[in-house]
Amino acid sequence: MSDLVSLLGEYRQGYGLPRSFYLNESIYHTEMDAIWRSGWLFAGHSVEAPNPGDYFVYDIEPDSIIIARAKSGILVATHNVCRHRGSRIMSEPAGHALRFVCPYHQWTYAPDGKLMTCRGMPDDLDKTVWSLKPVALREVEGLVFICLAEDPPDFEPAFQLMRLMARPQGFSRARVAYAAEYQVPANWKIVWENNRECYHCDANHPQYIKANFDRFDAGELDEQIQKRIDAATLRSQSRWAQAGLVITHSQAGLFHFPDARENIWYSANRTALVDGYMSETMDGHQIAPLMGSYSDPDVGTLRLRTLPNFWCHASCDHAVTTRLTPAGLHQTNVRVTWLVDEKARVGRDYSLDELLPFWKLTSEQDWEICGNVQRGILSRVYTPGPLSPKKEYNVISFLDWYIQLMKSSAEMAVSNGSV
Amino acid sequence: MSDLVSLLGEYRQGYGLPRSFYLNESIYHTEMDAIWRSGWLFAGHSVEAPNPGDYFVYDIEPDSIIIARAKSGILVATHNVCRHRGSRIMSEPAGHALRFVCPYHQWTYAPDGKLMTCRGMPDDLDKTVWSLKPVALREVEGLVFICLAEDPPDFEPAFQLMRLMARPQGFSRARVAYAAEYQVPANWKIVWENNRECYHCDANHPQYIKANFDRFDAGELDEQIQKRIDAATLRSQSRWAQAGLVITHSQAGLFHFPDARENIWYSANRTALVDGYMSETMDGHQIAPLMGSYSDPDVGTLRLRTLPNFWCHASCDHAVTTRLTPAGLHQTNVRVTWLVDEKARVGRDYSLDELLPFWKLTSEQDWEICGNVQRGILSRVYTPGPLSPKKEYNVISFLDWYIQLMKSSAEMAVSNGSV
Amino acid sequence: MSDLVSLLGEYRQGYGLPRSFYLNESIYHTEMDAIWRSGWLFAGHSVEAPNPGDYFVYDIEPDSIIIARAKSGILVATHNVCRHRGSRIMSEPAGHALRFVCPYHQWTYAPDGKLMTCRGMPDDLDKTVWSLKPVALREVEGLVFICLAEDPPDFEPAFQLMRLMARPQGFSRARVAYAAEYQVPANWKIVWENNRECYHCDANHPQYIKANFDRFDAGELDEQIQKRIDAATLRSQSRWAQAGLVITHSQAGLFHFPDARENIWYSANRTALVDGYMSETMDGHQIAPLMGSYSDPDVGTLRLRTLPNFWCHASCDHAVTTRLTPAGLHQTNVRVTWLVDEKARVGRDYSLDELLPFWKLTSEQDWEICGNVQRGILSRVYTPGPLSPKKEYNVISFLDWYIQLMKSSAEMAVSNGSV
Repeated sequence: MSDLVSLLGEYRQGYGLPRSFYLNESIYHTEMDAIWRSGWLFAGHSVEAPNPGDYFVYDIEPDSIIIARAKSGILVATHNVCRHRGSRIMSEPAGHALRFVCPYHQWTYAPDGKLMTCRGMPDDLDKTVWSLKPVALREVEGLVFICLAEDPPDFEPAFQLMRLMARPQGFSRARVAYAAEYQVPANWKIVWENNRECYHCDANHPQYIKANFDRFDAGELDEQIQKRIDAATLRSQSRWAQAGLVITHSQAGLFHFPDARENIWYSANRTALVDGYMSETMDGHQIAPLMGSYSDPDVGTLRLRTLPNFWCHASCDHAVTTRLTPAGLHQTNVRVTWLVDEKARVGRDYSLDELLPFWKLTSEQDWEICGNVQRGILSRVYTPGPLSPKKEYNVISFLDWYIQLMKSSAEMAVSNGSV
Repeated sequence: MSDLVSLLGEYRQGYGLPRSFYLNESIYHTEMDAIWRSGWLFAGHSVEAPNPGDYFVYDIEPDSIIIARAKSGILVATHNVCRHRGSRIMSEPAGHALRFVCPYHQWTYAPDGKLMTCRGMPDDLDKTVWSLKPVALREVEGLVFICLAEDPPDFEPAFQLMRLMARPQGFSRARVAYAAEYQVPANWKIVWENNRECYHCDANHPQYIKANFDRFDAGELDEQIQKRIDAATLRSQSRWAQAGLVITHSQAGLFHFPDARENIWYSANRTALVDGYMSETMDGHQIAPLMGSYSDPDVGTLRLRTLPNFWCHASCDHAVTTRLTPAGLHQTNVRVTWLVDEKARVGRDYSLDELLPFWKLTSEQDWEICGNVQRGILSRVYTPGPLSPKKEYNVISFLDWYIQLMKSSAEMAVSNGSV
Repeated sequence: MSDLVSLLGEYRQGYGLPRSFYLNESIYHTEMDAIWRSGWLFAGHSVEAPNPGDYFVYDIEPDSIIIARAKSGILVATHNVCRHRGSRIMSEPAGHALRFVCPYHQWTYAPDGKLMTCRGMPDDLDKTVWSLKPVALREVEGLVFICLAEDPPDFEPAFQLMRLMARPQGFSRARVAYAAEYQVPANWKIVWENNRECYHCDANHPQYIKANFDRFDAGELDEQIQKRIDAATLRSQSRWAQAGLVITHSQAGLFHFPDARENIWYSANRTALVDGYMSETMDGHQIAPLMGSYSDPDVGTLRLRTLPNFWCHASCDHAVTTRLTPAGLHQTNVRVTWLVDEKARVGRDYSLDELLPFWKLTSEQDWEICGNVQRGILSRVYTPGPLSPKKEYNVISFLDWYIQLMKSSAEMAVSNGSV
């Protein structure tokens, strides 16, 4: 831990992180405890388990979490580990079962984790003691978050913001049209550093930049472009203010996020798309029925993010969520999920050929970048370079946020005498 | 080592082992020394090397052992490492050679390990010093055991018991009909814990439970079942007492094994099969000629076990041996070998289609279970659950045995001052 | 480091290295620093980057080095790591580019590493500070060597020797006809130990021994053989003395190399081939046009070596270079490159079927041997065996050289107080 303190001292604001933060196993373990097993993680969509007994599994090494719809209708998260001999209970990534039966000795649990039967055990065994171990869960407008900490941090501010901003999108009346799983050969922080700037967009994201203004940062806007953003913003205000659809991010560049000082690990904003783009699709056309409460395609895009593992880009007709999961120092597993309105039918109302390419290409372009950075940072001679205040302000914010969490953890360890 | 002492103190009889015993590299190394390289290991069958120069290789990471029939006719075990530059000598898993020639510089050894020639070396080199390094070997009724310790423990009690019980099976007059190799993704202790109870049989082993009574434990037997066991036992006593074929295990449930207090790491018993089962085959029929000295198929099954790596189920017409070899904390390599009488010919006297399925299915059902347990135990939240005294008494015995060996090792380390 | 000192003390001249030298991660890290990142490494051939903007990449874990022809025409080596966010810049193993553009944010470097543009960064950024990190490079007669040390050792003696001996071969007027990449499952020292003796040739290299005398060591030569060597030597002296093509190694056995006392890590010699062999090819025939300044095929073979990663066998018509790169304790990556005269055209002047087999077979025979040794040395019971003074004198020299470098490193660490 004293190593960590001295390492943290090497961070210099405005530059990348020192190389050790991407190489050091003990840093990784500290991150897993101080960030991944302390904060709220996006797990999936409530529509992935619509009925009692429906469940899906979220594996976050070395844990496996079952998110299940209890008989009462609420979603519950439990550890996928039998209390008897430790066997995994559910081996499929998703399914339906009103009784969760351990395949080993048939200890049987309710979807909410309560031990129902355990034949062969002494009659006086107190079954209430041997429920599946619980995991904190919060649902907001169809987005499911879990927290692996025993004492989860306050979810309320994130809940309030997302409830307001996400409601029109109708995540809880959506269907999953497609999901892609990636094993990105890069540390999870490299993935976020990539996500937090559009400095790299011009050369790497030919599809994305056609639809979005955010590659232009303050000072780079010609009058023409700001006029276009203003026009879209004005349109938004005049038509949907009453529906809560106001464009909230009308400046140039990226929405500022995160904020270390205020401990802002969640954000939501609505942003104008380039004229002619009704949706983040290859040619800007709407390609599926409107989602949620939208009555007009011209709603810009809704963007949500929560640290450490979630972001979402949602257009009028579809939404794309991205879930990160670290798999060791040098790999991040990513699940990208495309949602459409629950009533939309593939073949009739939309086609995957039109739905997927925009974010599939954009995502995969980023994963390749991240792999290149990982390989470079492994070089002995890598030293942090200067970040552009004009283009990489959110990378700086992300690193500040990260360093602050790690510092708190180190200080807590010191004050607990565990050093 | 003080870590080990404190870990050992966490074991609570009647519960599973604490998670660290499946995760901790230093535990694994201690196990390898205190158990795997101290005790006797089943290596294979003497009929796998019937003639002088015949050999087979048993790899137990990081060692490789040659078991060879010397010119004198006895079996000898040596390390498969040339004394000159360290090259592996025999690279095939089995074969025949009267001269073991290192492929690198042709140093040549006799099958018993003696250095015969080493051209190119000084004439005054003392060849007697450079034999292949020896490994202790004992053979009992065609079963070959080795010990990697310099000072092996007493084999005599195991020898006497197995000589008596295994003789009628005729392992030394058998032939290997088939062998299957598995890489089970689980710690070796998980494989034994699975082996030491039939609590899991009902749901997992549909073939096995049709042939065997041992899924019924004391208190679960209706009168009908005990009557059937008694009938089989009586039949046995009246017909084969004089041939040493007496059914030795006439109670319900599993034979009690191992025994930590008496340091019983070996066992042998004969057990009745369900009426109508003459052999552990899919439909209970005898499917190959009688083995050994059997003159009637109605002999129940012979069961042998030695810790840490061997068990055997033998019917009147075939025998199946299982050999475990740890391959790191999270993997166990398993070789399952089917034997028939040496005079039996495939196609004429038996078919693999009839011989293999019973134990192939039963084995693979267990390997899948073991993988599930391994994954579950890796979860951070895994804590040992309660074992059923009625159904898992032998799991408790196994854990007691294991803990006792590890404790002895820790105490020896303390008294040697190597802490 | 005190561990290293005590390990070094276990080395006994005339025997192999203790097992730890092949197993111990900290030994490996010391080797990487004290040998691989201190000495000169063969990287490739100048003809692999003939024109300004041509480059090739040499990866030596965890580093990646670009060797590029600058606009000035000289070869320059730089680290393949962008100074901004650390991304790999060049992802192809070789190519051509007059501007090295980082794929992430398009920071752009000249082939010599100078930062040319970095759009998006503050205007006052001092570009001279952010060049690609440089790597020392020396070229001798078309052979390219790099050194990863900040303060490289003297290359001059190696330069002078190789300039003299390699010039007639015409490496700088050659073309790469073929390159093979191998992942040899053995520690890099095992590969060198194999290279430094021909004791193993008789049984393992049926092609090689037909062409070469060096399997015969002093005391093993009958008069006949020495006469043949003498005849070849005399021929050489009478015909090519003035061209610097004198056979320099006219004794039996291998040229003595390396020399720990004199710190000789480089060597070059010309050696007679067996009568009837004009080239190291399957039947001894010349199979491509003469290289360099040769005017007659009867030139024996030129042999070059530099520790820790290079050797070369060159005949009148082709040259074969071997480059080693450690990839962890248990693997060595090897690139074998075949060169012919720059004017030779495949299909017209030579065929790969005739060019490749001799050294492809001989190399692959060695890689298999090395894998066998690696596996054997991993055995717990491996202990160093005696080396033959008559046949393995150069293995002893190699080990002496190795131990001396490691000792210097350990002493330096002690005197720096870094222990």
